[in-house]
Amino acid sequence: MPKNDNISKAVIKRLPRYRRYLKELMIEGKDKISSKEFSKLTGYTASQIRQDLNNFGGFGQQGYGYNVKDLFDEISSILGLDKEYKMVLVGGGNLGQALANYTHYSNMGFIVECIFEVNPRLIGMRINGIKVKDYAELSDFLKENSIDIGIICTTKNSGQEVADKLCAGGVRGIWNFTALDVNVPEGVALENVHLSDSLHSLAYYMENK
Amino acid sequence: MPKNDNISKAVIKRLPRYRRYLKELMIEGKDKISSKEFSKLTGYTASQIRQDLNNFGGFGQQGYGYNVKDLFDEISSILGLDKEYKMVLVGGGNLGQALANYTHYSNMGFIVECIFEVNPRLIGMRINGIKVKDYAELSDFLKENSIDIGIICTTKNSGQEVADKLCAGGVRGIWNFTALDVNVPEGVALENVHLSDSLHSLAYYMENK
Repeated sequence: MPKNDNISKAVIKRLPRYRRYLKELMIEGKDKISSKEFSKLTGYTASQIRQDLNNFGGFGQQGYGYNVKDLFDEISSILGLDKEYKMVLVGGGNLGQALANYTHYSNMGFIVECIFEVNPRLIGMRINGIKVKDYAELSDFLKENSIDIGIICTTKNSGQEVADKLCAGGVRGIWNFTALDVNVPEGVALENVHLSDSLHSLAYYMENK
Repeated sequence: MPKNDNISKAVIKRLPRYRRYLKELMIEGKDKISSKEFSKLTGYTASQIRQDLNNFGGFGQQGYGYNVKDLFDEISSILGLDKEYKMVLVGGGNLGQALANYTHYSNMGFIVECIFEVNPRLIGMRINGIKVKDYAELSDFLKENSIDIGIICTTKNSGQEVADKLCAGGVRGIWNFTALDVNVPEGVALENVHLSDSLHSLAYYMENK
């Protein structure tokens, strides 16, 4: 597949969305979709979609549109979703537990291997089948297991320390849910999910509609 | 405050971030910050920050920088965070419970009044002090209570029906956590948080670093 290294963040944000809609179409039993229908469904213009997909070689056929299953597989492969990812989650509070459960079950290929906690009441338990270990054991665990992604659900004050430990232990990606941003070394991918930012944007739009 | 109605989504996304950093500075006891320091902290250029704030009248002083508390208060007011928002949450599963708890306690001014569920085992319970009611009572509850925001944490198949009910019941904003997008009438604000999109972007960046 021809590949362009300068693909914008906006494109990479749209690909999972395209993929979600393609999955729905597959569930509905649709084999193909015209670029016009796909545009209506996703809310992006047909030309935007074509341009996005052209970054990876383009997949539509003039006068036919897109083959749903093929495009789904191609986008999955572009996103790296044809692989399996091993994850650890640090911070097994409410949000951490929900995420471990959510990720473990609803995203094939993303496996939460272990939850790490400092709370002695949780250590040794299993949360939805996932072992909870002492945070003090994190570095050793990372040495002994090849882990791809670290999820951080601690308080914001511990976020950076946890990120440092995870990166030193060899994770290639950090999914950060703490309220503040964390720094990661070059070569480690980072996605921040700031739930309160999203809520605050919502408040703005409500007041300015 | 002079106001520009055509403020881009990107600006509105950055404001909560500025506010988070200002809050940190307040906690550290800092009264003022130069535009250069603030740029370093937030990761945006000083000119970007100035341009963003100029949409609302601008607040810095040449040669002084920003008064931390004043700018925090101004941004809070722009975002509508000087008000109180009443919320209901539909779907009290793992993620819903975590969000109810998270939002209720960590965001002053955002109050979860009630959780609505279809699962009879949860109905009648309290989750972190918040009542769980039968989803069948949602419309009546909305008639009797003035609710600003509806949080949707159901499966994606119920998402649209729940959104319709919430909007018919008069909410002004929808915070959607289902896997698919929902449609809302003109005049209702919508924020989608697609956790799996974020995870899939992370996978892409890990494979393409």
